[in-house]
Amino acid sequence: MARWEPDSRGRLEQAALALYSERGFENTTVAEIAERAGLTERTFFRHYADKREVLFGGGTELQDRMVTAVDEAPASATPMEAAGAGLRAAADLLQQRRAFARQRARIIAASAELRERELIKLASLASAFADALGRRGVAGPAASLTGEVAIAVFRSAFERWVDEADDRDFPEIMRESLDELAAVTAR
Amino acid sequence: MARWEPDSRGRLEQAALALYSERGFENTTVAEIAERAGLTERTFFRHYADKREVLFGGGTELQDRMVTAVDEAPASATPMEAAGAGLRAAADLLQQRRAFARQRARIIAASAELRERELIKLASLASAFADALGRRGVAGPAASLTGEVAIAVFRSAFERWVDEADDRDFPEIMRESLDELAAVTAR
Repeated sequence: MARWEPDSRGRLEQAALALYSERGFENTTVAEIAERAGLTERTFFRHYADKREVLFGGGTELQDRMVTAVDEAPASATPMEAAGAGLRAAADLLQQRRAFARQRARIIAASAELRERELIKLASLASAFADALGRRGVAGPAASLTGEVAIAVFRSAFERWVDEADDRDFPEIMRESLDELAAVTAR
Repeated sequence: MARWEPDSRGRLEQAALALYSERGFENTTVAEIAERAGLTERTFFRHYADKREVLFGGGTELQDRMVTAVDEAPASATPMEAAGAGLRAAADLLQQRRAFARQRARIIAASAELRERELIKLASLASAFADALGRRGVAGPAASLTGEVAIAVFRSAFERWVDEADDRDFPEIMRESLDELAAVTAR
């Protein structure tokens, strides 16, 4: 394959999401994705390890951004404020890919295998938060609780954002959710 | 079946949990559970609709207790304090069944089908919290966020409680987790 393939990754992603939406993730093959994109299977495997990676390949960058933001939060920040900085960084990143995120959410909701995989990803994000908070000196149990709570906030805000009836940006919804958390937990 | 069967429900539960642990939930039949308990399949079905109900039948009582505690929390309680009352009620109830809860947690962890079912149950508890908070006048988004956060606290505390290395009672661990939540979210 010596010929030039402009934006082959983007075309493969678009073809994959269209097919997963039309016939379900389980009933779509890599060969079909490549064909729909007008590319070869070999090109697909140059970009993705398997058909699941089209949906989950972005997870590493998301986690890196979140963790970096927690690491860089001011020393004076409370554990939840530091986690909030990570959540805001995640919202900024995901906002750039709203159409993808919405379509992806619908595809995942339709497949038990993908829902399970998504939950594993969220659990791993919670652990990454806890580890980052641990590096800030937060004790183990408090760090892991904050990680779980951060993911609860993430899920709640994410659901509002992918809801077609809510047209606001993710960073705005995330700020609102973090303010709500502060309000409902205030003594 | 006219003969007297002392504690047949308890014997069926014990037999079911032993078999699920030994050979896995998917590989156990109702006939085997009844046989191990020295009872008939008909007796099994008088107590449980199916083999999954042995593990999930207690969910309704748990949810009822949580919701009642939220409903009865003082009017002055913040949303999270009201949710905390529900969580403490849940911990009181579950503490009475520690051995069952621990064995059940291991069985569920070993089965994708049961993990999915457990997550659906937790999502339904989060909604029940949100509904109860709504009845207290908490606005929709804040109520649903609080429900999600309450479940995050529940999961975090539950994991510590079923951990064999931690011998404290669930109510004590729950109080600690709620105090931690207050500490990490304090401004």
